[in-house]
Amino acid sequence: MKARVTVMLKNGVLDPQGEAVRHALGTLGFAGVEGVRQGKVIELDLAETDRSKAEADVKAMCEKLLANTVIESYRVEIL
Amino acid sequence: MKARVTVMLKNGVLDPQGEAVRHALGTLGFAGVEGVRQGKVIELDLAETDRSKAEADVKAMCEKLLANTVIESYRVEIL
Repeated sequence: MKARVTVMLKNGVLDPQGEAVRHALGTLGFAGVEGVRQGKVIELDLAETDRSKAEADVKAMCEKLLANTVIESYRVEIL
Repeated sequence: MKARVTVMLKNGVLDPQGEAVRHALGTLGFAGVEGVRQGKVIELDLAETDRSKAEADVKAMCEKLLANTVIESYRVEIL
Protein backbone atom coordinates (compact mmCIF):
# COMPACT_ATOMS: atom_id res chain seq x y z
CA MET A 1 0.00 0.00 0.00
CA LYS A 2 1.28 3.44 -0.90
CA ALA A 3 0.92 6.59 1.19
CA ARG A 4 1.77 10.19 0.45
CA VAL A 5 2.58 12.68 3.21
CA THR A 6 2.67 16.40 2.45
CA VAL A 7 4.40 18.57 5.05
CA MET A 8 4.04 22.36 4.84
CA LEU A 9 5.09 25.16 7.16
CA LYS A 10 2.08 26.47 9.09
CA ASN A 11 0.56 29.77 8.07
CA GLY A 12 2.39 32.61 9.73
CA VAL A 13 5.69 30.76 9.89
CA LEU A 14 8.28 32.53 7.75
CA ASP A 15 9.22 30.49 4.68
CA PRO A 16 12.56 31.80 3.35
CA GLN A 17 12.82 29.00 0.78
CA GLY A 18 9.44 29.91 -0.72
CA GLU A 19 10.37 33.57 -0.64
CA ALA A 20 13.60 32.81 -2.54
CA VAL A 21 11.62 30.93 -5.18
CA ARG A 22 9.16 33.83 -5.50
CA HIS A 23 12.01 36.27 -5.98
CA ALA A 24 13.77 34.03 -8.51
CA LEU A 25 10.55 33.66 -10.54
CA GLY A 26 10.22 37.45 -10.64
CA THR A 27 13.82 37.75 -11.84
CA LEU A 28 13.08 35.25 -14.62
CA GLY A 29 10.22 37.42 -15.82
CA PHE A 30 7.24 35.56 -14.37
CA ALA A 31 4.98 38.37 -13.22
CA GLY A 32 1.91 37.86 -11.08
CA VAL A 33 3.35 35.38 -8.61
CA GLU A 34 1.94 36.73 -5.36
CA GLY A 35 3.13 34.12 -2.93
CA VAL A 36 5.10 30.89 -2.79
CA ARG A 37 5.24 28.31 0.00
CA GLN A 38 7.55 25.35 -0.24
CA GLY A 39 7.10 22.10 1.59
CA LYS A 40 8.08 18.48 1.24
CA VAL A 41 6.32 15.39 0.05
CA ILE A 42 7.21 11.90 1.23
CA GLU A 43 5.96 8.82 -0.61
CA LEU A 44 5.96 5.64 1.45
CA ASP A 45 5.68 2.06 0.28
CA LEU A 46 4.08 0.07 3.09
CA ALA A 47 3.78 -3.67 3.67
CA GLU A 48 0.53 -3.03 5.59
CA THR A 49 -2.57 -3.90 3.55
CA ASP A 50 -5.29 -2.59 5.89
CA ARG A 51 -6.15 0.96 4.86
CA SER A 52 -7.11 2.37 8.25
CA LYS A 53 -4.18 0.74 10.01
CA ALA A 54 -1.82 2.11 7.35
CA GLU A 55 -3.24 5.59 7.88
CA ALA A 56 -2.79 5.36 11.65
CA ASP A 57 0.80 4.14 11.20
CA VAL A 58 1.67 6.98 8.84
CA LYS A 59 0.16 9.54 11.21
CA ALA A 60 2.36 8.17 13.99
CA MET A 61 5.40 8.44 11.68
CA CYS A 62 4.52 12.08 11.01
CA GLU A 63 4.21 12.90 14.70
CA LYS A 64 7.48 11.17 15.55
CA LEU A 65 9.73 11.94 12.62
CA LEU A 66 8.38 13.34 9.38
CA ALA A 67 6.95 16.65 10.56
CA ASN A 68 7.96 19.15 13.20
CA THR A 69 4.44 19.78 14.47
CA VAL A 70 5.44 22.98 16.25
CA ILE A 71 5.90 24.78 12.94
CA GLU A 72 4.67 22.33 10.30
CA SER A 73 1.33 20.80 9.40
CA TYR A 74 0.99 17.51 7.55
CA ARG A 75 -1.57 15.77 5.39
CA VAL A 76 -1.73 12.00 4.87
CA GLU A 77 -3.20 10.40 1.76
CA ILE A 78 -3.46 6.65 1.32
CA LEU A 79 -3.22 5.90 -2.42
CA MET B 1 -5.62 31.28 -8.50
CA LYS B 2 -3.62 28.69 -6.59
CA ALA B 3 -1.37 26.04 -8.09
CA ARG B 4 0.50 23.15 -6.54
CA VAL B 5 3.64 21.70 -8.09
CA THR B 6 4.99 18.35 -6.90
CA VAL B 7 8.59 17.59 -7.85
CA MET B 8 9.94 14.06 -7.36
CA LEU B 9 13.18 12.40 -8.36
CA LYS B 10 12.61 10.16 -11.39
CA ASN B 11 12.48 6.41 -10.86
CA GLY B 12 15.96 4.97 -10.90
CA VAL B 13 17.59 8.12 -9.56
CA LEU B 14 19.14 7.43 -6.16
CA ASP B 15 17.28 9.24 -3.36
CA PRO B 16 19.58 9.42 -0.31
CA GLN B 17 17.14 11.63 1.61
CA GLY B 18 14.34 9.09 1.20
CA GLU B 19 16.72 6.30 2.12
CA ALA B 20 17.71 8.16 5.31
CA VAL B 21 14.03 8.55 6.24
CA ARG B 22 13.41 4.84 5.61
CA HIS B 23 16.32 3.92 7.85
CA ALA B 24 15.23 6.35 10.59
CA LEU B 25 11.69 4.94 10.54
CA GLY B 26 13.12 1.43 10.98
CA THR B 27 15.21 2.64 13.93
CA LEU B 28 12.08 4.12 15.53
CA GLY B 29 10.35 0.74 15.34
CA PHE B 30 8.15 1.24 12.29
CA ALA B 31 8.40 -2.11 10.53
CA GLY B 32 7.08 -2.76 7.05
CA VAL B 33 8.28 0.43 5.38
CA GLU B 34 9.57 -0.95 2.10
CA GLY B 35 10.54 2.22 0.34
CA VAL B 36 10.57 5.97 0.79
CA ARG B 37 10.97 8.69 -1.84
CA GLN B 38 11.17 12.31 -0.81
CA GLY B 39 10.33 15.24 -3.05
CA LYS B 40 9.22 18.81 -2.74
CA VAL B 41 5.91 20.57 -3.10
CA ILE B 42 5.59 24.21 -4.11
CA GLU B 43 2.32 26.10 -3.64
CA LEU B 44 1.97 29.19 -5.81
CA ASP B 45 -0.47 32.05 -5.45
CA LEU B 46 -1.03 33.47 -8.94
CA ALA B 47 -2.64 36.70 -10.10
CA GLU B 48 -3.68 34.93 -13.34
CA THR B 49 -7.38 34.01 -13.37
CA ASP B 50 -7.51 31.95 -16.57
CA ARG B 51 -7.08 28.29 -15.67
CA SER B 52 -5.34 27.07 -18.82
CA LYS B 53 -3.04 30.08 -18.99
CA ALA B 54 -2.11 29.58 -15.32
CA GLU B 55 -1.29 25.95 -16.03
CA ALA B 56 0.91 26.89 -19.00
CA ASP B 57 2.71 29.52 -16.90
CA VAL B 58 3.37 27.08 -14.07
CA LYS B 59 4.70 24.46 -16.50
CA ALA B 60 7.11 27.07 -17.88
CA MET B 61 8.21 27.89 -14.30
CA CYS B 62 8.88 24.18 -13.69
CA GLU B 63 10.96 23.83 -16.84
CA LYS B 64 12.99 26.96 -16.11
CA LEU B 65 13.41 26.89 -12.33
CA LEU B 66 11.37 24.60 -10.13
CA ALA B 67 12.45 21.20 -11.42
CA ASN B 68 15.70 19.83 -12.76
CA THR B 69 14.11 17.85 -15.59
CA VAL B 70 17.22 15.74 -16.11
CA ILE B 71 16.63 13.90 -12.85
CA GLU B 72 13.24 15.15 -11.60
CA SER B 73 9.68 14.85 -12.82
CA TYR B 74 6.97 17.33 -11.90
CA ARG B 75 3.20 17.40 -11.68
CA VAL B 76 1.11 20.58 -11.84
CA GLU B 77 -2.32 20.90 -10.21
CA ILE B 78 -4.42 24.02 -10.49
CA LEU B 79 -6.55 24.28 -7.34
